[in-house]
Amino acid sequence: MPLEALRHELTPAGLHYLLVHFDIPLIDQNTWTLSINGLVNQRLTIGLQEIKRLPARTLRVTMECAGNGRAQLSPRYPSVPWLEEGVSTADWTGAALFDLLARAGLQETAKEIVFHGADCGFDAGVEHHFARSLNVEQAMRDEIIVAYEMNGAPLPPQHGAPLRLVVPRWYGMASVKWLRAIEAIDHPYDGLQQARSYHFRRSLGERGEPCTLMRVNSLMAPPGIPDFYTRKRVVEAGAIEIVGRAWSGYAPIARVELGVDGAWQEARLDPAGAWCWRGWRASWRATPGEYELVCRASDAAGNTQPLEPPWDLSGFGNNGVQRVHVTVRA
Amino acid sequence: MPLEALRHELTPAGLHYLLVHFDIPLIDQNTWTLSINGLVNQRLTIGLQEIKRLPARTLRVTMECAGNGRAQLSPRYPSVPWLEEGVSTADWTGAALFDLLARAGLQETAKEIVFHGADCGFDAGVEHHFARSLNVEQAMRDEIIVAYEMNGAPLPPQHGAPLRLVVPRWYGMASVKWLRAIEAIDHPYDGLQQARSYHFRRSLGERGEPCTLMRVNSLMAPPGIPDFYTRKRVVEAGAIEIVGRAWSGYAPIARVELGVDGAWQEARLDPAGAWCWRGWRASWRATPGEYELVCRASDAAGNTQPLEPPWDLSGFGNNGVQRVHVTVRA
Repeated sequence: MPLEALRHELTPAGLHYLLVHFDIPLIDQNTWTLSINGLVNQRLTIGLQEIKRLPARTLRVTMECAGNGRAQLSPRYPSVPWLEEGVSTADWTGAALFDLLARAGLQETAKEIVFHGADCGFDAGVEHHFARSLNVEQAMRDEIIVAYEMNGAPLPPQHGAPLRLVVPRWYGMASVKWLRAIEAIDHPYDGLQQARSYHFRRSLGERGEPCTLMRVNSLMAPPGIPDFYTRKRVVEAGAIEIVGRAWSGYAPIARVELGVDGAWQEARLDPAGAWCWRGWRASWRATPGEYELVCRASDAAGNTQPLEPPWDLSGFGNNGVQRVHVTVRA
Repeated sequence: MPLEALRHELTPAGLHYLLVHFDIPLIDQNTWTLSINGLVNQRLTIGLQEIKRLPARTLRVTMECAGNGRAQLSPRYPSVPWLEEGVSTADWTGAALFDLLARAGLQETAKEIVFHGADCGFDAGVEHHFARSLNVEQAMRDEIIVAYEMNGAPLPPQHGAPLRLVVPRWYGMASVKWLRAIEAIDHPYDGLQQARSYHFRRSLGERGEPCTLMRVNSLMAPPGIPDFYTRKRVVEAGAIEIVGRAWSGYAPIARVELGVDGAWQEARLDPAGAWCWRGWRASWRATPGEYELVCRASDAAGNTQPLEPPWDLSGFGNNGVQRVHVTVRA
């Protein structure tokens, strides 16, 4: 997502970030079914039309790739080199996962729910379909949906058509696309994307901690105009309003500060949505010279963005502050 | 555009390639007007609603970035490192440029028509709005449209909303986005994006030849499944249909060949559209081993893709054949 799209709470269609592990599957929506199986009282095979007849809900959700910000770390992990653009917001419409699980009836021995996607390929030498799990308590949360619409239109192929999971507050890997099966199991899911990928690790060989909720983070729409090649910004002197968005999977955004060459001021916060980023704005009287603009968010749980990127071997969870260099001209 | 989208003649919404030189402008469609000025009998300022009342036409157009394939050259020009994915096809709906120019009335001294976009920034140290020209003969061609819809929906911001030029057969730089003015002049337009950028040059300091029509080119949807990191492909042994698309700005596609480790066979061609790529398919009986698949198109003007990328300092116009390495397993 180009950062000027931060002007919009809802990311314009076609600008939502994408991470496609393998190929976008070619799926016939007419014959597509979702299977619900494993430790359930009644195994189900449900078609798209049947899912659309369940009570529908629409949530505005901010989603961020766990690897967003990776390219700012040194040494850089050799994969998807996001700078800061791997975050976006969309309106997702679908059935509540809770409703689907209730229809199948979870058995008492069920501990985890596995979500299987149709996309397949190799990663770390292992052939697999993309799949992720949530524990039962996480999976039964009210806000998790099995979505078939994005921004009021049918889900596009690249965003998981015909069906995808949407897990608000979590990094994007939890929101499994091209969903073909939901499976209840009685043990921790050991698939590659769950047990090996998407872990915070400081060094090779560490088991690490799983990536889960999005860390508190914020971005600004860079002011002024860019240079094509360097992307450096030039701003006209005068009163400027800096606008941006802040989000956290842990708690509502409580505070955003704008720093200009190390001098911090409070940003004004827009009204907050339940599952989406919170707009903020700050005034700056720009006088000619060179400046570094920085924004820093804090959430109601007491988490604040670090000034330097936190080290991670794979570049996951980089919520270090954004730094925008600008030249102000007379 | 991910190459698996080559399965579709019409690139799915949100997957059309994008090259945005500066920022996507934030435009209020209600107050936006298009100015037609310079050497015309009647200067016009036209609103979006007025343009929509002109006779509308919809064309299916394949567009390719002039820098597509750049990343395959060595040494690589340090800008937008397309591999092969900078090409796509959309349905564009709008008014004929011819109709708009006829309403204003070109004066006899008019030699070139300049198209000014609203996007601005610096390139090569020069601050400018993106702008390109066509000579009068080129501009009066029947198929050039001023578009306000893409794939049946209003033009998205990133594709030039509310209005853009669409110039079939030309590399994408000619299809100016965020069009705000059309100007008739009596001399060659000397703007940076016309006179300096987008030229074929073998070495620094050369004046070069302007990039204009798309060179004959073709791509296949890579068969099988990918490895996440290397993107290498693994294919099951057996009868496989390889599908792809071919295009040329010079003449209709006349022939596509599929090469397997240097042995060439004729591909079957789908029906041809006037301004869009032509589908092709070829059968391959894959037996276990390592293979290099290559596709090569020729157009009715006698142009054929070269087997090696043609050298260009800026990596423009690379129509060297696509090479896909696959491992076939039993």
